Amino acid sequence: MTINRLSLNTATAKNLDVPTAIAAAARHGYQAIGFWRDRVAETGVERTAQLAHDAGLRVSSLCRGGFMTAADPDAIAWALVDNKAAIDEAAGLGAPELVMVVGGLLAASDFGGPALPDGDRDLVAARQRVVDRVGDLVPYAQDRGVRLALEPMHPIFAGDRGVLSTLGQSLDIAEAFDPAAVGVVIDTYHVWWDPQLATQIARAGHSGRISSYQVSDWVLPLDLDTLNSRGFMGDGYIDFATITSWIEQAGYSGDVEVEIFNKEIWALPADELLSTVRDRFARLISPYLR
Amino acid sequence: MTINRLSLNTATAKNLDVPTAIAAAARHGYQAIGFWRDRVAETGVERTAQLAHDAGLRVSSLCRGGFMTAADPDAIAWALVDNKAAIDEAAGLGAPELVMVVGGLLAASDFGGPALPDGDRDLVAARQRVVDRVGDLVPYAQDRGVRLALEPMHPIFAGDRGVLSTLGQSLDIAEAFDPAAVGVVIDTYHVWWDPQLATQIARAGHSGRISSYQVSDWVLPLDLDTLNSRGFMGDGYIDFATITSWIEQAGYSGDVEVEIFNKEIWALPADELLSTVRDRFARLISPYLR
Repeated sequence: MTINRLSLNTATAKNLDVPTAIAAAARHGYQAIGFWRDRVAETGVERTAQLAHDAGLRVSSLCRGGFMTAADPDAIAWALVDNKAAIDEAAGLGAPELVMVVGGLLAASDFGGPALPDGDRDLVAARQRVVDRVGDLVPYAQDRGVRLALEPMHPIFAGDRGVLSTLGQSLDIAEAFDPAAVGVVIDTYHVWWDPQLATQIARAGHSGRISSYQVSDWVLPLDLDTLNSRGFMGDGYIDFATITSWIEQAGYSGDVEVEIFNKEIWALPADELLSTVRDRFARLISPYLR
Repeated sequence: MTINRLSLNTATAKNLDVPTAIAAAARHGYQAIGFWRDRVAETGVERTAQLAHDAGLRVSSLCRGGFMTAADPDAIAWALVDNKAAIDEAAGLGAPELVMVVGGLLAASDFGGPALPDGDRDLVAARQRVVDRVGDLVPYAQDRGVRLALEPMHPIFAGDRGVLSTLGQSLDIAEAFDPAAVGVVIDTYHVWWDPQLATQIARAGHSGRISSYQVSDWVLPLDLDTLNSRGFMGDGYIDFATITSWIEQAGYSGDVEVEIFNKEIWALPADELLSTVRDRFARLISPYLR
């Protein structure tokens, strides 16, 4: 079975630095890789791009921009500066898509903590600020050939991490812009439960807005740290055959990133990790791609 | 401030038996109560109804029917028998609404465990079986004057507990039936994140299908047992002013149940628990009701 559209999102191999991850992906026959900014910062944008190129890997995306729900002017200014830096990095890497995790009800500077500051429960207003910030960033991103890829997140994260909760909502925002400027990420972990998923994937495909298809599984019981509660495809509840078929029918022809946050998986030896991902992909995803 | 629409859902006071919960609710000025079947079974339907009546409490709902996603004939037959018993109990209590938690991808008999049997990942088919079972039960419920109240559950529960994930999806099912036969439960904990919430609450009100408005808060970090991770209103992320106003504008005039699953809250002395619920209700919910 072919794995020619498999991309290693490096969050899956969080313990590896960029050179090690690139070497491991190439050794296991992967043809693409998606990077995270913190690891790229260690190695440098230029060297990362060169290493990926030399290893014959496409760069499928950069994770992540976003965190732009703040209301106060200083935090808004910071979000714009940081997102422009992320856009520059994506351009430097040759990553066509910048994945945007838009942020929760907390101010960006407070991100990471569980406490809710008094008075910031206005979800409708926070969502509008996301629309405003996307509008601010589009011209800068378009000039550099990078698409802003809005990622709807599972509603478990609506409070503290991402107020984009459905694919339909993300498309409502994206469709105010050129399809080359704003797309959407479809990550099975975040959207598998959505009763409108088939319809909204078709809609996203019809308007050419599928920036990335990412896969990992919903496993139970949840990890107390819900961010890191994902599993290998096949270990949980998600119907990859059906969802991948919808993606294929929507005309998506890009790379498919495996993105798994899980401490036990991160602790595996790199070769075991990458070969498990590859085998699961070949068995559960590839058969439903053209 | 008035609390005349406050109903104690007895899951909030899980450690109290029915006579104790009724006495406590009446002592604290509550005017309504919603029961759970397991506790009613201890006291008996007839005696529970009599005690509530004698205490001057309306019975706002019975929790719960449902768990009807199973595919095999024996489990389907069991689900119908059990739901008809629940309908009979609701009728005996004078509860106009039977709250339906429809079940997850597991067979009903396996409910409660984290493991996923091979082959039952077809969410689309599981959702269709819910539609089929509701259709089976409607005539029985209508004959007994009990409305089936479909409860959309937070997508965190889509795998193992409830494949109804949004209010819109629940209304799509309900609208195939008489509004007196099938309604919807709007529980803030389950629906607060939904980008379509305002629209769908208005839709539910317009067709007279709001069976119950239930309130509790989304608190972080989640409890490892996500079922029991709710908080007192005001302790988490939910914008009760906005959502309650939408409910009011939709024309809902029934009782508002406080339903909190939380081990620490259950452990409070009953008087402290009921007075905290009452105070939060008076401060955060009542001002937005007529």
